[in-house]
Amino acid sequence: MKSRDGSDLWPFFEPSSVAVFGSLRDGMGLGYTLIKNILDFGFTGRLYPVNPSYNEVLGMKTYPAVSEIADPVDLAVVMTPPPTVPTIIEQCAQKGVKAVVIVSENFADAGGEGARLQQQLVDITTQNVIRIMGPNTVGVFNAANGFTTIPYPFGYNKIRKGCIAYCSQTGIVLPECQPLEDRAYPVSKMCDVGNKCDVNEVDLLNYLADDPETRVVAIHLEDVKDGRSFMKAARRLAAGKPLFVLKTARSAAGARASASHTGSLAVNDRIYGDAIRQAGAIRVSTWQEFWDIPKVFAYYPLPPGNRIAVISHSGGAGVMATDLVEESGLAIAKYSDATLTRLANLSPRLAKNPIDLGPPLSVVEDPMSMQEEVILAVFNDDNVDCATIVLYVGTMAPTSYIVEMFDRILKRVSKPITVWFYGTKLPLVEEVSRQLEELGIATFTDQETAVKALGALVRYSKFRRDLE
Amino acid sequence: MKSRDGSDLWPFFEPSSVAVFGSLRDGMGLGYTLIKNILDFGFTGRLYPVNPSYNEVLGMKTYPAVSEIADPVDLAVVMTPPPTVPTIIEQCAQKGVKAVVIVSENFADAGGEGARLQQQLVDITTQNVIRIMGPNTVGVFNAANGFTTIPYPFGYNKIRKGCIAYCSQTGIVLPECQPLEDRAYPVSKMCDVGNKCDVNEVDLLNYLADDPETRVVAIHLEDVKDGRSFMKAARRLAAGKPLFVLKTARSAAGARASASHTGSLAVNDRIYGDAIRQAGAIRVSTWQEFWDIPKVFAYYPLPPGNRIAVISHSGGAGVMATDLVEESGLAIAKYSDATLTRLANLSPRLAKNPIDLGPPLSVVEDPMSMQEEVILAVFNDDNVDCATIVLYVGTMAPTSYIVEMFDRILKRVSKPITVWFYGTKLPLVEEVSRQLEELGIATFTDQETAVKALGALVRYSKFRRDLE
Repeated sequence: MKSRDGSDLWPFFEPSSVAVFGSLRDGMGLGYTLIKNILDFGFTGRLYPVNPSYNEVLGMKTYPAVSEIADPVDLAVVMTPPPTVPTIIEQCAQKGVKAVVIVSENFADAGGEGARLQQQLVDITTQNVIRIMGPNTVGVFNAANGFTTIPYPFGYNKIRKGCIAYCSQTGIVLPECQPLEDRAYPVSKMCDVGNKCDVNEVDLLNYLADDPETRVVAIHLEDVKDGRSFMKAARRLAAGKPLFVLKTARSAAGARASASHTGSLAVNDRIYGDAIRQAGAIRVSTWQEFWDIPKVFAYYPLPPGNRIAVISHSGGAGVMATDLVEESGLAIAKYSDATLTRLANLSPRLAKNPIDLGPPLSVVEDPMSMQEEVILAVFNDDNVDCATIVLYVGTMAPTSYIVEMFDRILKRVSKPITVWFYGTKLPLVEEVSRQLEELGIATFTDQETAVKALGALVRYSKFRRDLE
Repeated sequence: MKSRDGSDLWPFFEPSSVAVFGSLRDGMGLGYTLIKNILDFGFTGRLYPVNPSYNEVLGMKTYPAVSEIADPVDLAVVMTPPPTVPTIIEQCAQKGVKAVVIVSENFADAGGEGARLQQQLVDITTQNVIRIMGPNTVGVFNAANGFTTIPYPFGYNKIRKGCIAYCSQTGIVLPECQPLEDRAYPVSKMCDVGNKCDVNEVDLLNYLADDPETRVVAIHLEDVKDGRSFMKAARRLAAGKPLFVLKTARSAAGARASASHTGSLAVNDRIYGDAIRQAGAIRVSTWQEFWDIPKVFAYYPLPPGNRIAVISHSGGAGVMATDLVEESGLAIAKYSDATLTRLANLSPRLAKNPIDLGPPLSVVEDPMSMQEEVILAVFNDDNVDCATIVLYVGTMAPTSYIVEMFDRILKRVSKPITVWFYGTKLPLVEEVSRQLEELGIATFTDQETAVKALGALVRYSKFRRDLE
């Protein structure tokens, strides 16, 4: 019986020695690509390619079988045809390999013979201490030590190091599918648990609860193997770190579809909703929320209250943000008299919340400095807990100025702030957003998520205060 | 009393002669920029700059006052300081100018003296046949004749001509704020009604109901001036063309914010919701839905039923799409036996809905042709009314191939289809999406809207059938 407390998951993320089983075909084979990825990514542990058809790959000696490796092996990554996998895992168990990632698919996900093969894997891991991740997974990605088991080419070293762990039971979360570099998501670890024949969400949550590199966890799930253990693990994690859950396969048809691609079964969605809430975790409902809401928790301190300032270049967008404020459980902040005076001195039309910057900026000599003064006046108000800002970016509001302004603001105030940019040129919008992310300002591709994220932060802040 | 039937709105969109009031300062003044925009955009009517301080601008004679123009003037565009505006409008009325766009702000939107000035404008238009759009508006944009009243620089000729009218009571809808070119939105007309001292949503809906260039209408509203007239106009339009309404200022705080930037007052949001539904219009709830859902109505015929095919490169994304299918009132299509056989012959794992293309494509010699065969097999099935497709774009799935594939598919089947691309490189995702839009395939930046759009199309299709 495994402990499920996460303590034996370290070989997946922090192995000292890794055996790779798979095709070593030059430039093409999954084993070849994985070894190249690991080397490029800067991993400093030992690598052992295992393949009886080769003597050498990428300047490394290859081994005909895992038993031929003299040194201890922490992790094996297996990318061979399904019928060969159980024997390989048995040999790994005999060798004392601590953990295995099985990338190969066509197990329970394919049904029939595949399901029978997966049961063999379950039997092996039940009878041995060896832990198995997968099958049908791309495994792990660890920004801290430059290790990954993902056998697809990608510039893994370009991913921004950060404190968010993004986990999933499907491959679409992997760096090879998502704009991690273009959006500068701050990542600590990533993990795809695949068919979950052994390692599942419970192990993972327990491991991440204790991981010093990870301060925020976002997990995508189609099913949960053991509801009671999940609740316990989620509650433990959420008490110390914000936990986001994107639970899909919500509908009956979605659950059937899930069963046919990961071999899992689903239960009534309301049960999941209640469990997630009771655990103190935060349920997100879209792919975009899954990626973007955790950033706010990674960048900012928890706010003491729910009073928000809304600042916009467009009166219409300010109104939209204000609707979302009420719908997200936030309250429009009432500025102090000192702030109102400071704003009114800049322009009488500015002394309110939401602030429509458009008309006042259009009639002053130096709109950029007025904008900065407004944002600082509002941020420094003790009646303001957080802010959402809607800004135009384009020829009349250059990227460099915006980035420098936020850099100066961040040096003076640290309150949660979300920004939604609009403009005619998507590359400009994306560039300014990426640069702000690198500063530590959370940007969003839509206004709804920009405001919802702050609502979630305020609710989690209250949850944590109530725990104390 | 104005007729409000839209018949006198043509001078705003299709004037033969236009007088421009505003600063003619070289390269800077709003009047100068507007005249340059109109010339660059290809407008072939007559232009009369009116400004006593100049004799000539951009090679054109200027006039000290509108009364000095010998020819008839259909439209005046006024961008002068608020206190000068009422006199200019009176002179325009005396000259017999049919319509005026007042771009100038600081009227009811600023309160106080501004509100008093706006009342003067109301009095003038009540006592004369002249129609006023604004104040506090950028006015109109007409892709068909190359005419606009927007006094901000932008490559207006780069906007794709199409059949969707996007209207708003705020400037953020204008081409100078939105990625119209990068996303290739198919636009017929745009209009910002601003403070609505005269022309309002009722006039506009009635005008667009009869506009042959417009087949789909999307309107953003913060308030409605006359509920009964709005219902009548919305019902008339929706009976012939799909009408989308983004009603903001939904919350009490949002309504107060709206009042302070457009001088309008709001009522209980539920009343709006009921009115929009009863009129047969479609309420959209986000800015992204406002822009993206109408495209589906512009590109495709109305489907006879709600049976959808889901095809994805990712099993996980297929499950998410399937959840959204049920939530959008669609039903997962049951393929015919012939289709199931055709799919099973390609790979046994393909003979289902949703289809997870990932595993089968990863093991065949020519994944691109298999993908195209799958899509065609499904599209040709009489049990399929529409489809949503999730595709990876990147080095392993080049843009050119994807675009050529959809071009071939469109030549053989015309059923509604929405596509959501994912990948590591945002510029690639945006480029392939833009190219597909130009072919007439609706693409989306998020999966939720991609599926919701088809749900809206199916509901509107039923609404139109029920009218017959």
